Amino acid sequence: TNQLPSGYRMRPLVSSDYDKGVLDVLKVLTVVGNISRSQFVDQFNYWKSKKDMYHTLVVLNEQDRVVGCGTVLVESKLIHECGKVGHIEDIAVAKDQQGKKLGLRIINALTEIGRAQGCYKIILDCSEHNVKFYEKCGFTRGGAEMVLKF
Amino acid sequence: TNQLPSGYRMRPLVSSDYDKGVLDVLKVLTVVGNISRSQFVDQFNYWKSKKDMYHTLVVLNEQDRVVGCGTVLVESKLIHECGKVGHIEDIAVAKDQQGKKLGLRIINALTEIGRAQGCYKIILDCSEHNVKFYEKCGFTRGGAEMVLKF
Ligand SMILES: CC(=O)N[C@@H]1[C@@H](O)[C@H](O)[C@@H](COP(=O)(O)O)O[C@@H]1O
Ligand SMILES: CC(=O)N[C@@H]1[C@@H](O)[C@H](O)[C@@H](COP(=O)(O)O)O[C@@H]1O
Repeated sequence: TNQLPSGYRMRPLVSSDYDKGVLDVLKVLTVVGNISRSQFVDQFNYWKSKKDMYHTLVVLNEQDRVVGCGTVLVESKLIHECGKVGHIEDIAVAKDQQGKKLGLRIINALTEIGRAQGCYKIILDCSEHNVKFYEKCGFTRGGAEMVLKF
Repeated sequence: TNQLPSGYRMRPLVSSDYDKGVLDVLKVLTVVGNISRSQFVDQFNYWKSKKDMYHTLVVLNEQDRVVGCGTVLVESKLIHECGKVGHIEDIAVAKDQQGKKLGLRIINALTEIGRAQGCYKIILDCSEHNVKFYEKCGFTRGGAEMVLKF
């Protein structure tokens, strides 16, 4: 069971989540910048047009505000007999909502989506600081993440 | 300049590369398993249906055999003002072709595709053993890769 605190719920992102604070939640993770409603809707529709690949979940609190979110991107490969890999991305939980295991619930739900899509593994990249958290979620260390910034 | 040895060329994957040894090259990297021609064509067509996201390059030698390959998967996000991230995946060079900088040429070409698609960064995961190679390609260490295998 992957139970949320009483009054909280998890569901796929919808385009009206723009007004429920999803972008503020993402600011916990990194730079978000200015995103207008129409840019948000375009991005949502782009993901929807590739709905076998992009799966974004949000957690809402009792006041119906977004307090957590995360995405799993399902990649189709040739290796592993045309296998699939789930990439967990952009996991964020509002600062004042931490300690309620919302991150764990989101990771578990995204992992289940990846499994249901037929992925042979789920991977993610995180800072050293977050390794312990992902170990608690059942992940183990893989290789190194390498980055080239433009 | 990103010059290949004389007689070698690089181009996007085509479905007839099934007969040119691309699957044997991938076996250098990991498990490939049995993939029939029709499964390969289906996979190729799937990627083609999402051609803003999947870009696979192959290197062919003078005998017109595939001796190297690699993919960049372009992910669209909300963070970084609806930014994009390029994921470099499944880089493989045939064992007897190593030492000709084919890996570097493939990485450079995939990186340029990612840049042209508007990515703000390119990332990849690799074993500790390959960190030095990717540093030579201009990458630096990011965070940790975490894995959950099914
Ligand atoms: C598991 C998880 O949520 N990982 C995120 C990743 O998805 C996100 O893209 C990146 C943004 O960082 P950046 O702003 O430096 O690109 O941060 C973290 O690595
Ligand atoms: C840069 C690069 O080529 N990285 C590859 C990755 O793309 C591939 O998916 C994985 C397969 O390993 P697996 O068989 O253990 O999933 O190996 C390496 O990490």
